[in-house]
Amino acid sequence: MTGRATVPDAARTARDAANARAVARLTGARPVLETIAPAGEVVPGMTARTVLVSGPPMPWERYEGGQRRAVVGAALYEGLARDEAEAEALLADGTIAVRPSHDHATVGSLTGVCTASMPVVVVRDESSGRRAFCRMNEGADRASLTFGVWDDGVGARLRQVSEVVSPALAEVLEHLGGIALTPLVRRALAMGDDLHSRHKAAGALLRATVLDAVLDLSGGGVAERHRALAAYLRSAEYLFLHLVMAAAKAAADGASGVAGSTLVTAMNLNEKQFGLRVSGLGDRWFTAPLPPVSTLRGRLYDGWTTDDLAYVGGESLITETVGLGGMAAAAAMPLQDHSAGTPREMIRLTERMYRITLREHPEYRIPALAYRGVPCGIDVLRVAGTGIVPAVHLGATLRDGGHAGAVLFLPPLEPFQRAAELLSAAPPAPSPLPV
Amino acid sequence: MTGRATVPDAARTARDAANARAVARLTGARPVLETIAPAGEVVPGMTARTVLVSGPPMPWERYEGGQRRAVVGAALYEGLARDEAEAEALLADGTIAVRPSHDHATVGSLTGVCTASMPVVVVRDESSGRRAFCRMNEGADRASLTFGVWDDGVGARLRQVSEVVSPALAEVLEHLGGIALTPLVRRALAMGDDLHSRHKAAGALLRATVLDAVLDLSGGGVAERHRALAAYLRSAEYLFLHLVMAAAKAAADGASGVAGSTLVTAMNLNEKQFGLRVSGLGDRWFTAPLPPVSTLRGRLYDGWTTDDLAYVGGESLITETVGLGGMAAAAAMPLQDHSAGTPREMIRLTERMYRITLREHPEYRIPALAYRGVPCGIDVLRVAGTGIVPAVHLGATLRDGGHAGAVLFLPPLEPFQRAAELLSAAPPAPSPLPV
Repeated sequence: MTGRATVPDAARTARDAANARAVARLTGARPVLETIAPAGEVVPGMTARTVLVSGPPMPWERYEGGQRRAVVGAALYEGLARDEAEAEALLADGTIAVRPSHDHATVGSLTGVCTASMPVVVVRDESSGRRAFCRMNEGADRASLTFGVWDDGVGARLRQVSEVVSPALAEVLEHLGGIALTPLVRRALAMGDDLHSRHKAAGALLRATVLDAVLDLSGGGVAERHRALAAYLRSAEYLFLHLVMAAAKAAADGASGVAGSTLVTAMNLNEKQFGLRVSGLGDRWFTAPLPPVSTLRGRLYDGWTTDDLAYVGGESLITETVGLGGMAAAAAMPLQDHSAGTPREMIRLTERMYRITLREHPEYRIPALAYRGVPCGIDVLRVAGTGIVPAVHLGATLRDGGHAGAVLFLPPLEPFQRAAELLSAAPPAPSPLPV
Repeated sequence: MTGRATVPDAARTARDAANARAVARLTGARPVLETIAPAGEVVPGMTARTVLVSGPPMPWERYEGGQRRAVVGAALYEGLARDEAEAEALLADGTIAVRPSHDHATVGSLTGVCTASMPVVVVRDESSGRRAFCRMNEGADRASLTFGVWDDGVGARLRQVSEVVSPALAEVLEHLGGIALTPLVRRALAMGDDLHSRHKAAGALLRATVLDAVLDLSGGGVAERHRALAAYLRSAEYLFLHLVMAAAKAAADGASGVAGSTLVTAMNLNEKQFGLRVSGLGDRWFTAPLPPVSTLRGRLYDGWTTDDLAYVGGESLITETVGLGGMAAAAAMPLQDHSAGTPREMIRLTERMYRITLREHPEYRIPALAYRGVPCGIDVLRVAGTGIVPAVHLGATLRDGGHAGAVLFLPPLEPFQRAAELLSAAPPAPSPLPV
């Protein structure tokens, strides 16, 4: 059935050992939300003229939709140009550098734009000491840089999150000594969240924790910034997604670079392409054109159909890399209309994912599957061998920008096949390390 | 299959109309948590020497376990006697009156004891204007009057809830103008709660709402009572149960007394007996001895087995009366070990309940059943005709008192049969009212 059957026993043993080591780093991660800080102060390699963006690298001239609008908007927000024309010129000549988030220990939601002054969530994996980052959620408004919209309202909301909400949340996190994310994810999986398209439970638990801390900090009265934080928490439904994304990125980076491992360590999109990385093949991207938006499946807001959608990039797929999102569909029955359609198909979707993954997560468990661990650690050989691609729960964006709902995305098979072929052709030396 | 098949068509039509009217009152209820107040100030018929208790009425001399301990403890807490001996004497001669909660628009958790000074949650059904009550939850400690324990520690915690926490929560409720419960129940059913044995989602949502309001009230600094309320909310896992119980009681009382209706309007227990009421038969109790505790099924704390348990009464079964708890097992996969055992059996349990109920609730829905409404409105004729009894998720109490876990309780069939026979023998006149 799988590509593994065609390789010699010694190579297979070495590969199994490499995969066991890689996936153990995924499942052994202990992510803690440490603080919120301006990207320029914490993100490695970030400069005053960097704009991070989601997706496998792509020449700037090929961006033409939501990501282009968001990059130009981010440049204007950051004060790198006086107007769009100047921004376009500086982007064209490389004075403003558009850089892939993944190369900066960062992941981006949808367009994924981030500039130096923008706040990022800082998540540290206590097992490895590794940090990863994701820009703070912009709040509840459907129009945002995340969803490919730039206007004065977007700018004002960005400033409020940057200057008021984020420092207040950082203060709370300092007071609490950080917030361990594993217990919240574990609990939320038993409460209908998939931790990609749905965060209602995790969000409520986080919100109560933060509000409690705000009370602790309010001996002399409640500060305005704390009231603003409370208001933000009432509405920013996807804040927790950004924490899980950074947590997953820290875990996946820890699992990268294991020689011979066929584990997927990243999946993402830009406007045009799907991309993935594999542990044993380091930072190389395997890409393929995105399927037509009409093949997406899911319920949208306001009567929109999938034909109204456009791809604007996205790296929240990192949650699927660690076994959440579409991989954990069976845990999130409230998402059925945005995913496989029925409770039975949600169960089947997750059951299929066990055929392409290396391990059941020892802590992230699904009550509806009698507490079986989520399918964790996508194996390109198993994907290539079965033809089953990872199921992804994705936020949907309108062609002209704006949040349109949530959909089920099935990535193209071909880049998994290419990575599998490459690894099958070059079996690694047996690993000298115990696993 | 059912008893209805044996009655003439006209009588059946009248009965169906009566049931439609009764169950519409159940499903049409719009419960709002209004305030928290001392029972003596709000509960109808409450006197300074009343002790309310769970269960169908039973002569005082027959109480010998947890309810007896709790009633004596409540009398001492209330200052109605100086010591146990005096309390026993005053209870024996009726100076202290032990009264069934249900006759006072009140329902009790487990032992269900309540005295005049103790705070109750006040829930108003906005559809009917009817109010119902349930004593405030005592907090997280496994030793409590609720679970049949009385000692100085229990007394101190009761006083803290009565004198500090409840006034603070009442202040919050006044600030908010009450809290509508239907939206919280609806959301919690999509988040793994059954609203009887599990309230983690509803509790988190309520807690965030209350903490937000506390911040609103803390302009000049956070008051000690508000900090105490926040601490209580962190730990009182079953607070929301008491709100749902009062909400269900208000709805069920509204559905009572519809001539000819075979709808169950109350189920409860005392130490010895299970009891139920039926809408068309008013306040009459149909009772039967409780099954042996060894027949209960579920996971308990600390290695206890069902043989270590004893019945101490309970009226949280009112939640099953409106379609929650065991009736909604399919919504609450995290309870599987405390109930039917596996995800599949949880689904089957709820599916069986549709065979004995009159309606699918139009608002309380189960994602795992493709958003089918919970089975609402138990019909004694259907129970008698099928032999299927309502599934109840019940808190478990140790023989010597204390919280021991949660179990699946299946009430005896016989009182349903007796009520069904009585109603079959006396078909009502056709209803003149539109339904």
